[in-house]
Amino acid sequence: MYTLKNTKLICTKCKKTFPIDQVYPRCDICKEPLEVEKVSRGGIHEGDILNQTILERYADFFPFLKVDKKISLHEGFTPLVESLNLASELDVKNILFKNESQNPTWSFKDRGTVVGIQHALSLGYKRIGAVSTGNMAVSVAAYGAKASLETFILVSANLPPEKLNPIAIYDPILIKVDGDYGKLYFDSLDIGKQNGIYFINSDAPFRVEGSKTIAFEICEQMNFEDPDYIVIPTSSGGNIRGILKGFEEFRQCGLIKKVPKMICAQASGCSPIYNAYTNNMKYISRVENPHTIAHAIENPYPPSGNEVLRKIRDNEGVFVSVTDDEILQAQKRLTKEGIFGQPAATVPLAAVKKLKNKNIVDKNSTMVCIVTGGGLKYTAVFEKHDLKALDCTLENLSKSITNRLL
Amino acid sequence: MYTLKNTKLICTKCKKTFPIDQVYPRCDICKEPLEVEKVSRGGIHEGDILNQTILERYADFFPFLKVDKKISLHEGFTPLVESLNLASELDVKNILFKNESQNPTWSFKDRGTVVGIQHALSLGYKRIGAVSTGNMAVSVAAYGAKASLETFILVSANLPPEKLNPIAIYDPILIKVDGDYGKLYFDSLDIGKQNGIYFINSDAPFRVEGSKTIAFEICEQMNFEDPDYIVIPTSSGGNIRGILKGFEEFRQCGLIKKVPKMICAQASGCSPIYNAYTNNMKYISRVENPHTIAHAIENPYPPSGNEVLRKIRDNEGVFVSVTDDEILQAQKRLTKEGIFGQPAATVPLAAVKKLKNKNIVDKNSTMVCIVTGGGLKYTAVFEKHDLKALDCTLENLSKSITNRLL
Repeated sequence: MYTLKNTKLICTKCKKTFPIDQVYPRCDICKEPLEVEKVSRGGIHEGDILNQTILERYADFFPFLKVDKKISLHEGFTPLVESLNLASELDVKNILFKNESQNPTWSFKDRGTVVGIQHALSLGYKRIGAVSTGNMAVSVAAYGAKASLETFILVSANLPPEKLNPIAIYDPILIKVDGDYGKLYFDSLDIGKQNGIYFINSDAPFRVEGSKTIAFEICEQMNFEDPDYIVIPTSSGGNIRGILKGFEEFRQCGLIKKVPKMICAQASGCSPIYNAYTNNMKYISRVENPHTIAHAIENPYPPSGNEVLRKIRDNEGVFVSVTDDEILQAQKRLTKEGIFGQPAATVPLAAVKKLKNKNIVDKNSTMVCIVTGGGLKYTAVFEKHDLKALDCTLENLSKSITNRLL
Repeated sequence: MYTLKNTKLICTKCKKTFPIDQVYPRCDICKEPLEVEKVSRGGIHEGDILNQTILERYADFFPFLKVDKKISLHEGFTPLVESLNLASELDVKNILFKNESQNPTWSFKDRGTVVGIQHALSLGYKRIGAVSTGNMAVSVAAYGAKASLETFILVSANLPPEKLNPIAIYDPILIKVDGDYGKLYFDSLDIGKQNGIYFINSDAPFRVEGSKTIAFEICEQMNFEDPDYIVIPTSSGGNIRGILKGFEEFRQCGLIKKVPKMICAQASGCSPIYNAYTNNMKYISRVENPHTIAHAIENPYPPSGNEVLRKIRDNEGVFVSVTDDEILQAQKRLTKEGIFGQPAATVPLAAVKKLKNKNIVDKNSTMVCIVTGGGLKYTAVFEKHDLKALDCTLENLSKSITNRLL
């Protein structure tokens, strides 16, 4: 039974169209990424989200006639947490954190993974894969296991055990590949084609569709009063593309009045999109020797980089980069709000601080920061913080605490 | 303004009553734990849970006249994930996993923490605390930060950095106490009294109230068709008490027909409640030299142990213990469902397997396992599993994958 709606894929650059059942994610002419045609009619299927999935609630915005609920681990529907203290500290109207660390594998990747697998299943695929060294590899390994699919995870040969183990625990076919990691992304697409493996890579059109749900939920959580800015840690560019597309579709459908501005936030140790923007370039250049504490966004040559440049310029959005010190400071500050994010996930808070200091962001702004993944993903970072513990004997404890309070 | 309902605390053993604004969690006569009087009238405040907290949705079941939403990190509303594969493998009617690793600090503790803090704030406390080495310490440190409360976390002197750091990152007043850790629980209550610190320890009455919401959500997620068994990793006894109380209150209010049987699951390296049950004792005895991979439930002398014995016997529930090997096997098996739980969190799956093999559980049973916390909480466990990765050059990758599939 054919389970896809009558829609198509479109090249983000030349607008050439491709069939919706195509897996290859890029245009054969201009080599730029494809995306699913925008939805311009639809609404929210309101229901009890204790018993609903994102693919059900936002079904109008996905090209599926039918979804398999059994592959869901109940991704999405993550909290939007407000901080009055930070709003006052940074002198903005409002700042909120979309906490993606409460997903099944503790990062936003689960949204795109479930949508990608749904597409793969619609087309009869029994094998999926991903080229990733971090959050996406974990997510695809977990969902591949849940859906009983043969799952290929391709990582770089030098990946250390602390990053390898959280992937390997789900028992995918995990391959450490010795060679150029940037080339691996493109090679995987051909290998997938030859071997019937659906690679749900970082900016695959259906993964981008999954990221739309972040925008949808923010709209609902803010009662459809649009924020001014969405601040997004940006690596491949898939997530920021999806979030922007989500807002655009909700506006086309009349659910919101305006599309907020996207802030593309990168780490200064690896900021190819920010570099291209500040140098007034149309295309990104590869970053040589990338290095940042925010490993999850350390992509030296993001496959959707050019498209992010085009889209965020159109959107009148902002490009910004922050240093490792600023990221670590933001990570620590965010824990005071009860949220422990991995370094990449605290890039947005660092970015807000920087943009506010430079008066690029107005003080009447409402800012939403996407906390993309949880802090336990990268525990080596503990060493970078000055963490304190006092020593005391049980006998002296009472006196010691009383003295402390005096 | 007084913000507590007109109800009371009751001794779980002698039924002596205490005022609802009492913080001391135990009866002055029989030294057993207190609990909040059971609710017998109430319903669910249905709303959009994207914008609701557990304290709002289940407000009728909490003794608060008014709640402060700002202290919430949006705990609870966690998924209930079904596994058809495991049901068939274990030959039970249905098995579901309540995935508590999708809470703000990735364990069930956040539910009780937010309720405890709500009580503390109702009484005007500015200081909170907890005696814990694991999930609860992390949770109280995070929520204490969010609520801008002075937060005391007391841990044992020999706690290794990998357990200390995830607490310290939230910047509580973290004290390593040299002395008997079991005694520390009781000492903390007195120290709290003297210094105006509200200790939200493992079986504090208001922490137990938080665990009720696990039961409430299961009822909603199963459309009020009660499961047969709830399988709960049991340490202090606070969580299993709360879950049972939740079902009992929903039954008293006519929301469900029967209360499921609780399965109190312990690790055989530290199973004081199971030991007392099998030896037909009324009271638990301290376990000397406890040792299990499931550190999160390694409590040698659980403060609610006697009450769990009483309550689960009344409930006609089941007591079971499982070995470290069985726990590790269950941990690996659960990842095939896409869920990576910490060892304590996979004790229920190990328990179901054991009970089914011994024919203690009927094959027509519907079982709900509580996955209490996430796998990244305890990464040392990776070494215990045989995790595999293949090596390959980029040049040979295509051939290697094709050969694999032939």
